[in-house]
Amino acid sequence: MIIITRPDISDDELDHIRERIESAGLHTHLSRGEHRTIIGCIGDETRLQEIPLRSIPGVESVLPVLKPYKRASREFSVDRTVVRVGERASIGGQAITVIAGPCSVENRDMLQETAVAVRDAGATILRGGAFKPRSSPYSFQGLGAEALKLLVEVRTATGLPVVTEVLDTRDVDLVAEHADMLQVGARNMQNFALLAELGRAKRPILLKRGMSATIVELLMAAEYIMANGNSDIVLCERGIRTFERATRNTLDVSAIPVLQRETHLPVIVDPSHAGGDASLVAPLAFAGIAAGADGLIIEVHPDPESALSDGDQSLAPPAFVSLMDRLSAFAAAAGRTMTTASAGAPA
Amino acid sequence: MIIITRPDISDDELDHIRERIESAGLHTHLSRGEHRTIIGCIGDETRLQEIPLRSIPGVESVLPVLKPYKRASREFSVDRTVVRVGERASIGGQAITVIAGPCSVENRDMLQETAVAVRDAGATILRGGAFKPRSSPYSFQGLGAEALKLLVEVRTATGLPVVTEVLDTRDVDLVAEHADMLQVGARNMQNFALLAELGRAKRPILLKRGMSATIVELLMAAEYIMANGNSDIVLCERGIRTFERATRNTLDVSAIPVLQRETHLPVIVDPSHAGGDASLVAPLAFAGIAAGADGLIIEVHPDPESALSDGDQSLAPPAFVSLMDRLSAFAAAAGRTMTTASAGAPA
Amino acid sequence: MIIITRPDISDDELDHIRERIESAGLHTHLSRGEHRTIIGCIGDETRLQEIPLRSIPGVESVLPVLKPYKRASREFSVDRTVVRVGERASIGGQAITVIAGPCSVENRDMLQETAVAVRDAGATILRGGAFKPRSSPYSFQGLGAEALKLLVEVRTATGLPVVTEVLDTRDVDLVAEHADMLQVGARNMQNFALLAELGRAKRPILLKRGMSATIVELLMAAEYIMANGNSDIVLCERGIRTFERATRNTLDVSAIPVLQRETHLPVIVDPSHAGGDASLVAPLAFAGIAAGADGLIIEVHPDPESALSDGDQSLAPPAFVSLMDRLSAFAAAAGRTMTTASAGAPA
Amino acid sequence: MIIITRPDISDDELDHIRERIESAGLHTHLSRGEHRTIIGCIGDETRLQEIPLRSIPGVESVLPVLKPYKRASREFSVDRTVVRVGERASIGGQAITVIAGPCSVENRDMLQETAVAVRDAGATILRGGAFKPRSSPYSFQGLGAEALKLLVEVRTATGLPVVTEVLDTRDVDLVAEHADMLQVGARNMQNFALLAELGRAKRPILLKRGMSATIVELLMAAEYIMANGNSDIVLCERGIRTFERATRNTLDVSAIPVLQRETHLPVIVDPSHAGGDASLVAPLAFAGIAAGADGLIIEVHPDPESALSDGDQSLAPPAFVSLMDRLSAFAAAAGRTMTTASAGAPA
Repeated sequence: MIIITRPDISDDELDHIRERIESAGLHTHLSRGEHRTIIGCIGDETRLQEIPLRSIPGVESVLPVLKPYKRASREFSVDRTVVRVGERASIGGQAITVIAGPCSVENRDMLQETAVAVRDAGATILRGGAFKPRSSPYSFQGLGAEALKLLVEVRTATGLPVVTEVLDTRDVDLVAEHADMLQVGARNMQNFALLAELGRAKRPILLKRGMSATIVELLMAAEYIMANGNSDIVLCERGIRTFERATRNTLDVSAIPVLQRETHLPVIVDPSHAGGDASLVAPLAFAGIAAGADGLIIEVHPDPESALSDGDQSLAPPAFVSLMDRLSAFAAAAGRTMTTASAGAPA
Repeated sequence: MIIITRPDISDDELDHIRERIESAGLHTHLSRGEHRTIIGCIGDETRLQEIPLRSIPGVESVLPVLKPYKRASREFSVDRTVVRVGERASIGGQAITVIAGPCSVENRDMLQETAVAVRDAGATILRGGAFKPRSSPYSFQGLGAEALKLLVEVRTATGLPVVTEVLDTRDVDLVAEHADMLQVGARNMQNFALLAELGRAKRPILLKRGMSATIVELLMAAEYIMANGNSDIVLCERGIRTFERATRNTLDVSAIPVLQRETHLPVIVDPSHAGGDASLVAPLAFAGIAAGADGLIIEVHPDPESALSDGDQSLAPPAFVSLMDRLSAFAAAAGRTMTTASAGAPA
Repeated sequence: MIIITRPDISDDELDHIRERIESAGLHTHLSRGEHRTIIGCIGDETRLQEIPLRSIPGVESVLPVLKPYKRASREFSVDRTVVRVGERASIGGQAITVIAGPCSVENRDMLQETAVAVRDAGATILRGGAFKPRSSPYSFQGLGAEALKLLVEVRTATGLPVVTEVLDTRDVDLVAEHADMLQVGARNMQNFALLAELGRAKRPILLKRGMSATIVELLMAAEYIMANGNSDIVLCERGIRTFERATRNTLDVSAIPVLQRETHLPVIVDPSHAGGDASLVAPLAFAGIAAGADGLIIEVHPDPESALSDGDQSLAPPAFVSLMDRLSAFAAAAGRTMTTASAGAPA
Repeated sequence: MIIITRPDISDDELDHIRERIESAGLHTHLSRGEHRTIIGCIGDETRLQEIPLRSIPGVESVLPVLKPYKRASREFSVDRTVVRVGERASIGGQAITVIAGPCSVENRDMLQETAVAVRDAGATILRGGAFKPRSSPYSFQGLGAEALKLLVEVRTATGLPVVTEVLDTRDVDLVAEHADMLQVGARNMQNFALLAELGRAKRPILLKRGMSATIVELLMAAEYIMANGNSDIVLCERGIRTFERATRNTLDVSAIPVLQRETHLPVIVDPSHAGGDASLVAPLAFAGIAAGADGLIIEVHPDPESALSDGDQSLAPPAFVSLMDRLSAFAAAAGRTMTTASAGAPA
């Protein structure tokens, strides 16, 4: 931690600042410049994080040196984390992993039909919403527990492990009993009660970036889950909120190489929510893989214009097949492979 | 709902769009322009909200006519809502209401000392965090249930009703037993499970705007609570996230007159979180009242530099007294009164 | 300047960094922490601004200590600057100054009628666009030189000094011959060729904040003009671009106290462009004054619905009179006076 | 244009709105809904753009149907535009075009050395700044006219056509005499005087997106140039300003497919400015090509840590060679070719 003082600081104020730092067990080191004195704080910076240093008279600004995340940081783990999902799928290895499926589980038939279609096209994990966070209380809220059962049935039938979102701390156990991976949606990225509860779950977590969360805040959300005991986390860039209105969100494609530099956790991209438009899914998926992502999560619906949620951005199966066909060349250009379709076949 | 078609739309596509609209029980009306055909949809627009119209071939864009919120809208209620908090306080009437207190309840003495100080300066509701949403898992997380008891004790001693945040659906009943008003923090504004649970609570709600939530989304969050049975809601503008780094957030002061036009619910301002700096609290508080806010929520701590959270933006009691002294002239200029200090005195 | 090194820096890399700093004439000071070495650079920081320190191997991040602006900074001038406009008006003193007039000069009659109306209501400077920056090449572009003549005529008739925008370096002399104050529009805030030319003009400058400019960048734009010889600058907050769509821009009201702390230059608010809606002008004007602004610039048109530009946000004269009537109470609450109407009367 | 009325509109207000529309030569068509009347305006919408419809009593909102750009729109030109630069280079065809070179022309040797290096690696156009827009008046401002001469010399020596930025309307002729392509920087994207002047230039234009410009505004800036006579325009996405601080800007990769859908003009990506960091240039370049860009503009410097500007984001020649080596696989995946190096060789 480095403290920059105001030009007019008094000696008493300076002494007081040093006492506060030293009472927290750190050493201080002064550099007197022409205009300002700079106080370097040597020692365990985390002890200072709880002290509101800017409120101390004479302090102009405070510059942290260490990053606030530890377990999520690249320095914490020599190897990149590979997160296993179900018995056969994984995210973070040499191969690109594609998660696909409907926004919401609407009924058994559509789920089964979609699952088979995405599996045959190369997806190895099935997505499907049971509990849906909807911005209107009057919109379809998902089938809830009934959808969880359908996900289990379709997993058995297709061999695809399933990921679904959990919205409420009270539902964590129930969802963890049924799903292979638990998703934290963008709107809950800083729902700290939920993050803490997921730290105690025995399932890998798919953590979506909040729509106005910085990359540091995304890593701190992962840190919350890790600090509570669960290190199997996949990060997901799904577009951030900006002034631009031509797309639903702005895919922050730069976040991918930044995250690959900062953390050992795998990073995937959600091109469906980022663009909010079916015609943008393929170019954004390709851009994500080109930038270094470990995988994709894509919404697919047998009949998008009948979808109960997110139909505007869902691909029909033929469009998904076409995307997957083109994807392998981008994966190869990025030095990655595609999981072969057979890897997802039932036993 | 108005649908604008692509220039190259075929007659079959046009017919198909009309069938979808009419099958939802609305009438359609075509205006054929030089370049595009416009389809007006007459009838209950909410029936169309679930149909992904943009995914239908031939549709270029979709323009909603009605606002998505009903109960929260100005048209729903002729009179402005006045929310009562505890036995004597209220928000939304002719008088400006000031909520003040520490960010976190740290112990009994500091809470009591702060409560007396803010009450004597004119605040009529006490704030104090029991469960704290902190961006780091390693930061002080609040005293929890113990803090709730302290809030009750200090309410009895000072006569001030109390507002405190609830983070977890599982805590709603417990917090509602102790507090007079329940706060939804900015990070939980779209925690729909929590909003629904609060719709069933028998306490007024202080709903803070999410840091990247639009005004419409804030009103939809209120609508969630109202649709679940609770209409006693106070909205709070607390700063939004923008590119500017000189302040912690950007107070969206324009949101106040926009909300006063769009909704019957009261609107207050949180100048402490908006600026993130004690020196900005007074000017932002004055600006909020000048723009038409019904009240303020301000962080006050007996010794900001020792605060366990938010010390940088907390006012010491003398600074709060000074702010309150100056505030009355702004309230008068805005055609409002200040609640007299005696109104908050114990029985 | 403080340099934070990567954890794995070699001794050679460290030596190389120090040589680069020292070759620029500064001293270096090392603090070796547990994880990273911190290099303090003591001396004239401006000499380092041209060195791309982050590109040197071993450097993780670079933290400037000094602010990049000098002449614009509060430390540069003990006294607050008062900018004189024409013979009688000024901005930055104890009184609130109101600039008002039409977006564009459309013809002599409308300009004269507006000028008399705003003067009689208490405005002391007349605004009126001659050269208009329009986002469409097909929109009305202003009357140009003809409008400048009309502004001079109306100044003579009413005694009000005039401010008008200059868009092109080639027009600076022409506009300076006719107008009492030259405006730099938001879109030109970083048109450095124009800023440099205005540094050589003998007229005060009204510098509007760019719609995505930080406060530091606004001050650097002022610094450009000052470094080229002109220190008579008034800064104008006119709303920034954010994700919110309910208003044309988001008035960054916090920028006012921040600028009052950082610079000696006067600061005014443009509530017309910030909200983009006539109904928002009054509340935003009041908020600006409450937050500490030195004045306002407001669009007034005799018949807004016939205006050739910005009609949606222009006030008709009666609404402007009403605003001015209410404004004085807010000015008084802020410890300011209003210039009396007579001060603007013709000799 | 569609006008939505307020719920409480009177018949007289409704008649008045219709008269305003019809007096502009359009027909009106009413749809009376349950809550609001909708007025469809049939005819030449551009005639309404100058009327401030929202300021007319009874109007709640105004929804444009037509896009404000014409010449830049996809409907204006059946074929995609291919922009020729110099005698041999072009942008917009089947091949990916790479522009590379130093941020600033610092001297003859560094320019020559860089030009040869980028040409040999496959770049076909040389960039180099003569007039530099710098946010500080105290920073290196470019060599100006001297740099233009060096660009001509190096063009002769290497056969590479050159692109350089023009900042001032007064310099357009001079720069056009020397350079093969004129660049409009992000900060000047809405410098309408400059855009109009460039409409009269006989050189193709490289138009960079402003850092807070919407895609529509970028297209309107192109429209300005086109309406003034010059249709040889290449659009450049170079990152937008958002809340994220981990990167200098946020590359809006979605803008590429949106622009490819909306306009016939070629679109390139500037990964150097988008990320602001040399380590991000390659992944962002690959992402841009994967998303469908027609080319790239990349900053290369023989010794980045000695660069007089933008050293932090400049690639040294070996890193550029490595990027180009990997780029061809991404181009092939996107169905594009790379221009062969020989195409840029001198005659």
